[in-house]
Amino acid sequence: MNKLEEKLIKWRRDFHRYPETGFLEMRTASIVASILEDLGFQLQVGKQVMDPDYCMGKPGEEETEAHYKWALEHGANKDYIEHFSEGYTGIVATMDSGKEGPTIAFRVDMDALDIHESEADNHVPKKEGFRSTLPNKMHACAHDGHTTIGLGLATLISEKKNSLKGKVKLIFQPAEEGTRGARSMAEAKVVDDVDYFIATHLGTGVPDRHFVASNNGFLATTKLDVTFKGEASHAGGKPEEGRNALLAAASAALNIYAVPRHSEGSTRINVGELHAGSGRNIIADRASLKVETRGENSEINEYVKSQVEAVIAGSAQMYKVDYEIKTVGEGVSSRGSKELAEILRACAEESSYIEKSILEDNSPAGSEDATFFMEHVKQNGGQATYCIFGTELAAGHHNEKFDINEETLQTAVNVLFNSIGKLKE
Amino acid sequence: MNKLEEKLIKWRRDFHRYPETGFLEMRTASIVASILEDLGFQLQVGKQVMDPDYCMGKPGEEETEAHYKWALEHGANKDYIEHFSEGYTGIVATMDSGKEGPTIAFRVDMDALDIHESEADNHVPKKEGFRSTLPNKMHACAHDGHTTIGLGLATLISEKKNSLKGKVKLIFQPAEEGTRGARSMAEAKVVDDVDYFIATHLGTGVPDRHFVASNNGFLATTKLDVTFKGEASHAGGKPEEGRNALLAAASAALNIYAVPRHSEGSTRINVGELHAGSGRNIIADRASLKVETRGENSEINEYVKSQVEAVIAGSAQMYKVDYEIKTVGEGVSSRGSKELAEILRACAEESSYIEKSILEDNSPAGSEDATFFMEHVKQNGGQATYCIFGTELAAGHHNEKFDINEETLQTAVNVLFNSIGKLKE
Amino acid sequence: MNKLEEKLIKWRRDFHRYPETGFLEMRTASIVASILEDLGFQLQVGKQVMDPDYCMGKPGEEETEAHYKWALEHGANKDYIEHFSEGYTGIVATMDSGKEGPTIAFRVDMDALDIHESEADNHVPKKEGFRSTLPNKMHACAHDGHTTIGLGLATLISEKKNSLKGKVKLIFQPAEEGTRGARSMAEAKVVDDVDYFIATHLGTGVPDRHFVASNNGFLATTKLDVTFKGEASHAGGKPEEGRNALLAAASAALNIYAVPRHSEGSTRINVGELHAGSGRNIIADRASLKVETRGENSEINEYVKSQVEAVIAGSAQMYKVDYEIKTVGEGVSSRGSKELAEILRACAEESSYIEKSILEDNSPAGSEDATFFMEHVKQNGGQATYCIFGTELAAGHHNEKFDINEETLQTAVNVLFNSIGKLKE
Amino acid sequence: MNKLEEKLIKWRRDFHRYPETGFLEMRTASIVASILEDLGFQLQVGKQVMDPDYCMGKPGEEETEAHYKWALEHGANKDYIEHFSEGYTGIVATMDSGKEGPTIAFRVDMDALDIHESEADNHVPKKEGFRSTLPNKMHACAHDGHTTIGLGLATLISEKKNSLKGKVKLIFQPAEEGTRGARSMAEAKVVDDVDYFIATHLGTGVPDRHFVASNNGFLATTKLDVTFKGEASHAGGKPEEGRNALLAAASAALNIYAVPRHSEGSTRINVGELHAGSGRNIIADRASLKVETRGENSEINEYVKSQVEAVIAGSAQMYKVDYEIKTVGEGVSSRGSKELAEILRACAEESSYIEKSILEDNSPAGSEDATFFMEHVKQNGGQATYCIFGTELAAGHHNEKFDINEETLQTAVNVLFNSIGKLKE
Repeated sequence: MNKLEEKLIKWRRDFHRYPETGFLEMRTASIVASILEDLGFQLQVGKQVMDPDYCMGKPGEEETEAHYKWALEHGANKDYIEHFSEGYTGIVATMDSGKEGPTIAFRVDMDALDIHESEADNHVPKKEGFRSTLPNKMHACAHDGHTTIGLGLATLISEKKNSLKGKVKLIFQPAEEGTRGARSMAEAKVVDDVDYFIATHLGTGVPDRHFVASNNGFLATTKLDVTFKGEASHAGGKPEEGRNALLAAASAALNIYAVPRHSEGSTRINVGELHAGSGRNIIADRASLKVETRGENSEINEYVKSQVEAVIAGSAQMYKVDYEIKTVGEGVSSRGSKELAEILRACAEESSYIEKSILEDNSPAGSEDATFFMEHVKQNGGQATYCIFGTELAAGHHNEKFDINEETLQTAVNVLFNSIGKLKE
Repeated sequence: MNKLEEKLIKWRRDFHRYPETGFLEMRTASIVASILEDLGFQLQVGKQVMDPDYCMGKPGEEETEAHYKWALEHGANKDYIEHFSEGYTGIVATMDSGKEGPTIAFRVDMDALDIHESEADNHVPKKEGFRSTLPNKMHACAHDGHTTIGLGLATLISEKKNSLKGKVKLIFQPAEEGTRGARSMAEAKVVDDVDYFIATHLGTGVPDRHFVASNNGFLATTKLDVTFKGEASHAGGKPEEGRNALLAAASAALNIYAVPRHSEGSTRINVGELHAGSGRNIIADRASLKVETRGENSEINEYVKSQVEAVIAGSAQMYKVDYEIKTVGEGVSSRGSKELAEILRACAEESSYIEKSILEDNSPAGSEDATFFMEHVKQNGGQATYCIFGTELAAGHHNEKFDINEETLQTAVNVLFNSIGKLKE
Repeated sequence: MNKLEEKLIKWRRDFHRYPETGFLEMRTASIVASILEDLGFQLQVGKQVMDPDYCMGKPGEEETEAHYKWALEHGANKDYIEHFSEGYTGIVATMDSGKEGPTIAFRVDMDALDIHESEADNHVPKKEGFRSTLPNKMHACAHDGHTTIGLGLATLISEKKNSLKGKVKLIFQPAEEGTRGARSMAEAKVVDDVDYFIATHLGTGVPDRHFVASNNGFLATTKLDVTFKGEASHAGGKPEEGRNALLAAASAALNIYAVPRHSEGSTRINVGELHAGSGRNIIADRASLKVETRGENSEINEYVKSQVEAVIAGSAQMYKVDYEIKTVGEGVSSRGSKELAEILRACAEESSYIEKSILEDNSPAGSEDATFFMEHVKQNGGQATYCIFGTELAAGHHNEKFDINEETLQTAVNVLFNSIGKLKE
Repeated sequence: MNKLEEKLIKWRRDFHRYPETGFLEMRTASIVASILEDLGFQLQVGKQVMDPDYCMGKPGEEETEAHYKWALEHGANKDYIEHFSEGYTGIVATMDSGKEGPTIAFRVDMDALDIHESEADNHVPKKEGFRSTLPNKMHACAHDGHTTIGLGLATLISEKKNSLKGKVKLIFQPAEEGTRGARSMAEAKVVDDVDYFIATHLGTGVPDRHFVASNNGFLATTKLDVTFKGEASHAGGKPEEGRNALLAAASAALNIYAVPRHSEGSTRINVGELHAGSGRNIIADRASLKVETRGENSEINEYVKSQVEAVIAGSAQMYKVDYEIKTVGEGVSSRGSKELAEILRACAEESSYIEKSILEDNSPAGSEDATFFMEHVKQNGGQATYCIFGTELAAGHHNEKFDINEETLQTAVNVLFNSIGKLKE
């Protein structure tokens, strides 16, 4: 194991022990920022690279402040954490060669999930001592690995900066889970000058030692938080005086699932949570839903969303209750640029670790907000792709026993670094 | 069996054989009118005694014309049927003594039901040869008996007209079923001059030889016809292009039943019919509901109705379909006048046939639109009541084996006739 | 203000400051037990007077232990609290005269509610410094007053014990809210020897200085906790692998409200809470409902309950999920004994404070589990009633601004004490 | 216009004037049989070629007899109609060359739809005098054209029978609409000896002068008729005695639409019709649904169907009603044989009329039961395909203004006939 590989594993395990969820990646960002500056990158952080109007589903002040205190006490870098104390935890790190050449951006994400990590003895992070230190928080989607890949890439770029042409931008994005963070960075124009944009992910069902140069199947998605507000009354004494938010929500949930299929492409709908009422004998005056729509492309997703909105409005009217719909996450669909994908595949095929590489995968699967960066880049005439490094998974993504094969980290760093040399203006 | 009793049975069986539903009682009304005029009553008929604006759920022209032809061919009195050919089948027959005295009104109803009469051999009308001559039409609520009582009463009044004081008005009402006909006669002011108003009914669960002088428990009611209009599309080919009226109707039905109870009195709700769609593989563009609300008093019924309307509007909005709500029947609640009830009870107690008489029954039960007459009379300072002659029933009201004990007819005629003499201005 | 009245107010305000919810009334019970023993009563406590099989909706061990610690630190009587540490907080205190005579029982309840008491300056408990010391806990249904009345009654009995005949039993019941505690005491046979049973309540809409000797309108009720257990799956990736507990619960809620009215009496149904799901993009595998049924009598309530159970079973089947229904509260209907009510009314009429006394109130209202005691007593040939002392309320029961007129406490003590002398075997 | 083309148009317009729906194609079949026998084909008809156990959604005896009378009076061939009088209207006509060679089968369908044909003056069938002679019946899916193509093909085969090798079987199938008729013929083994099977259709969105040699996108489908049977009761008088079939059906409809999407392929669900109840004031004791499921392959369709069945069972349980599910139509998915498709495309490319030919179309669209024949043939080692002749449509399939370009008929006959010569064993 060479020295960089040792560092990669050390970083990854440190991030793994201190998982931070979306817009709270303060400890992570402070450490990342400190390393990047040491490596000679120029940094832009926080609101410089995030438009607050497009931060979706950001935690409230109280939670943000509490987390800030926690981060301070748990190893955050004190020289940098102030920049991230309000929860704007994005970083763009630029290495400008001063020479002519293309602007190339790589994007990694940093956030963890609200999952309680397995305590089983055969779970590697437990056995090796880097299990999450927090209950109900876990890196179960490899973003700890992605952040690490970003730092590894930065290290190689810094070492070889003399041979660099053009510029490289490393984007460390908050809040990918729930597709909440990318749009705010894209709207802050951080990729408007980018010629080549490469987002990357580990795993996602791609086998170990396999590589997908362009994953095109992301579904467009919208995440909605819905609240109904009615009027409480005593269910035995004055049932007629209530306005029943629980029934409005139940009716909405049922009818949301009944939104029609679309003939032009796949759709998905889910009401993942419903919470209503405050007591058995009280007509419920409050109810909330967490809803998610998806479509094979952005138009189809818009169709589903508009039907969902009609159902919610109708349910509220039925029970004479008020309602509010808040968009707390959004992802679009996007196709990768074939030319760029071919270059990436060529780099992957040079890797001794990778046994099989695929140019394009178009099968529908999940959602991602890196697509916002991709669409911005493509609209400005650049090329963009979303590539996947297969890895051996101990269990599926978002599972409490999720774990990766750490060997993949070094491979990903090498392949991505090698692509830089092959990309010409 | 005296001569009047023979007539009563003959009349009743004739009406029983030719049942006519609401606003189509043309054959019945033509025969009634002819008899009444022969007995010396002055007649007002059709639109003279019915305000068309308040006729609810009246059949369309085509059905009305077709029935007119049927009536002509099946024993209607040709000298009178023209008056009723448009379906305004109400009659008010007045006997004015010319002497001072109170104006007393009796109300009977004439319409039958859409029920197929039993063909069982032990069903008396079948055995005795007076079963309905029409499929799916039947006098299963004793209105054939009520009409007969009206004619019997007219006969006695005519015979004894010299001893009469004041005026007697006999009201023959169409379309009591569905509470559709009374309001149009009340709005035509036919009881505005009435001092004493007596409506009557046979059966309704009151045992044979029992009498209830004032039945107060009628629930206020509203009958609504609801239609949803969406947009058809091929369910396999273009599901997203449909606007689903069937789902709007299904959702409305479910949520209508979920309208809350009321703490101040009984309520009832029913969606008796739902019809939607025109083909298995087509998104349904049409749906209809037949809805009925009831409340222990008119305010409570209004509450239920307003909730139902909200549910319908909300269901339509959910599925982006249009809707229409039509009121096709209405009944109010009304309490009988105690003083008048006491006089009636006294008359009943003089009858050798009646074994038990009750002044008031306040338990909630069914709906009636005679209450519109009662409320009009009471608002003008008169007295009103709704009395019930118990009878032995072969089966419950609206059952295909319904039948009465015909002996009750003569008793009812006598008791009602005797009340006339006891009512003073 | 006499000395007893001072004590009553002091007790009531102390209980008010330290509200304890059902089966956690440890501090309250320890203080009550200490006072009663000082007054010369013989005590039976805990499982001696409560059958654990019939304790419904009792908190789990963890919560019970945590509350025990809290009680120890907040003024519980340390000599008595051990008896109540497991949450069996009932007390039966007996004063046996040794002379022949009837056994008379009085029942009061001790539990508080999960309500956050008003912090408004015009709220008397706030102004006078006896507002609840706990967030989200409050005596908002006068049980602090009832416990106080029990202690006042004990004081008078103790003072006049020489003139006592027969036995007096004072029953201090836990967990009346949710109708959870009485049945366990009734099943433990604490009233099987009772000749006269009197339960009492303050307020409930009866005006200040009014008295109702027999409140008969309690609806029979059942409280059900329902859980659905399905199977989670990723809503985007594998929607077909989920078994959706949220939809089962939503469908159950809607159809529960659609359970028909009953022609023989009032009913009530409520789904007061619905909680389902653990993440927006996961098919929900868990859902829970808090349901409540009521009926004008126990048969009607059973009808409603059986319909609700069918709806729940059907909803589970629809979505291929498992379900469990737990009865966590129960109350029956019961009519008071007229003879006993008349004696109580006579006592009330002797009170200078009470201006109007009513023998019976039959109008339907709320539910109570004192009815279990009443039915046990009546089945054993005894007499029972539930009487109400009207009082001026600052706001309705279960409202955050609820407060009573403390003058009523002394009046209630006097009237109840006087009844003892009038009850003969 | 050559003589055959004249005949084709004459036949097609005759069939168009006398549309007959599924299992009632008696007039059509009698004429077809007569022509085929005249042309020298050997006929098998009725139950010889249809297994009654697999006839789905066949009309009842009464309707079948009535239609038989109608057919007799409206131009049926009296020598042949007896064979079809019970509604088994399938025909297999064989021309055996006596020489060695492959067995080639062509399948056409004969049934019409329950649609009222447009009476607009610009509707060609109206203008040209061949509009449907029946209200609410119409050839709106070109099956009149398909039957005609079958007869044209028979004519050419007969003319050129000396050059024929092997056998040709012409299959005239009843009841393709609703996917009800093919399975009964396939189960009767009519294609078990077939080497090449070709089904054909006009239109379906393929442009005029275009040809698709293999249409693979048919969705597997199941058609279900569902009935619920509860118990009626008077909605005002005894609501608790009803068992509400309308609510069971409404709840089923809503929850059927909520059946999840499938990650492995498209699905469709429709409840096209819901009919419930017999009167406004009666708790509905009967309800029926017409349901249709589809899936991109047969496994996916089975999944959807099993979910639908669970919903129906659960809905019935909710309302304590009985239910019955009847399968009244079925289609499987099937892919065409590429080799056969290539031969057909070659024939199409030789046609001067066809401008563009496509080998395969895999996009999902509608359902067909010719797939049963295809799967049988392929399982026996034969080849099968479903080809489409584009044509200019006046309006979409199943639209009241549907009409084809009659020129396509001759083209289709020629291309199909030419394929015979190219198919070797």
